[in-house]
Amino acid sequence: MRTKYHEQLDEYDRTLVAMARLVRAAMVRATDALLTSDLALAESVISDDRGIDLLYADLEARSLQLVALQAPVATDLRGLISGLSILASLERMGDLAVHLAKLARLRYPNPAVPSELHGVIREMSEVADRIVGRTAEVLATRDVPGALDLAVIDNDMDRLHSDLFKTVLAPTWPYGVETAVDLTLVSRYYERYADHAVTIGKRVVQIVTGEPYNSATFR
Amino acid sequence: MRTKYHEQLDEYDRTLVAMARLVRAAMVRATDALLTSDLALAESVISDDRGIDLLYADLEARSLQLVALQAPVATDLRGLISGLSILASLERMGDLAVHLAKLARLRYPNPAVPSELHGVIREMSEVADRIVGRTAEVLATRDVPGALDLAVIDNDMDRLHSDLFKTVLAPTWPYGVETAVDLTLVSRYYERYADHAVTIGKRVVQIVTGEPYNSATFR
Repeated sequence: MRTKYHEQLDEYDRTLVAMARLVRAAMVRATDALLTSDLALAESVISDDRGIDLLYADLEARSLQLVALQAPVATDLRGLISGLSILASLERMGDLAVHLAKLARLRYPNPAVPSELHGVIREMSEVADRIVGRTAEVLATRDVPGALDLAVIDNDMDRLHSDLFKTVLAPTWPYGVETAVDLTLVSRYYERYADHAVTIGKRVVQIVTGEPYNSATFR
Repeated sequence: MRTKYHEQLDEYDRTLVAMARLVRAAMVRATDALLTSDLALAESVISDDRGIDLLYADLEARSLQLVALQAPVATDLRGLISGLSILASLERMGDLAVHLAKLARLRYPNPAVPSELHGVIREMSEVADRIVGRTAEVLATRDVPGALDLAVIDNDMDRLHSDLFKTVLAPTWPYGVETAVDLTLVSRYYERYADHAVTIGKRVVQIVTGEPYNSATFR
């Protein structure tokens, strides 16, 4: 028989997936704002982040309440406790999208990213979208191989991040210091976004298997 | 009567404070490695981070076990659950010290930071040291006003971070793109380090008062 408690757990899990989708949309829109110098879009990414923050606060309060009142055990307990770390990562991913949007706003009406570099930023945003899309699936299905695969997608991001650094630091870099600084930060935001997805994957493995986070499985 | 359970809670809290002290020492040593181009010191910061990671894994496992076996309530429950977020922040602060050490290593035998800019980096490291020192105290005492004060110290860091950006982006910046990129990242590492201290402060308030994290108290 389904109890109210189990319904609450399911509802919690569904909301976590919904939060991942919001964070995904925020990054897509932030990238567009950055590459098209769209001030209105940038502003909306920034203001919409409040919704992600509220969801974070709500889900955290719900999980604390469920732990306190229901004394869950095993997978349910791990789902709620590791869920807190997942929540924190998702909230932070939303913040990283906001950082991109704020950069678009800061440089407006000038473009923050020279058009010759749109390609690499598009690639980074595609990897970001791929990894967060898979993350939402992994959250919905608790698929362990899928969760471990997130680290493989993250390798693509690390390669792009490293390539971008080489471009910025090449003696032929034509865009000056401000653009170098902007691109350094942009690249780091995407890279951190993907790192958080990997962290979420590890937490899902922990929920399913009970394997401690940061164990040898992940090295 | 003191029970074994309460002894375990006390031991957990003491280890959390010890972890904050390790993270503090890591940052002091990383800054020295960076400003004196000391490769051996940089290497030791990098390898010693393994100890912080192990402490993280150990404390997290202990808190999960205590929650599962003792079904703590109220302050004890919040101490363990919010403790997980505190642990995650401390672990991340250790990583940020490692990032500084890795930059010192990458540029060795050249200095990553030109000597004319040592002053501002010293200032940032002093604020970092002040905020993490206060954080360790706040963790030990659960002093709510002290916890809220961390955000005030963080304002000093934000100001230094913003000043450094102005220096890097000034038309008179004489050091070229590579140093601009390095300084951008260095400044961001210190700034994030202080942000994590503020997050820890909020979690301590949550433990003591039950006030939800990210509530209006912190705005």
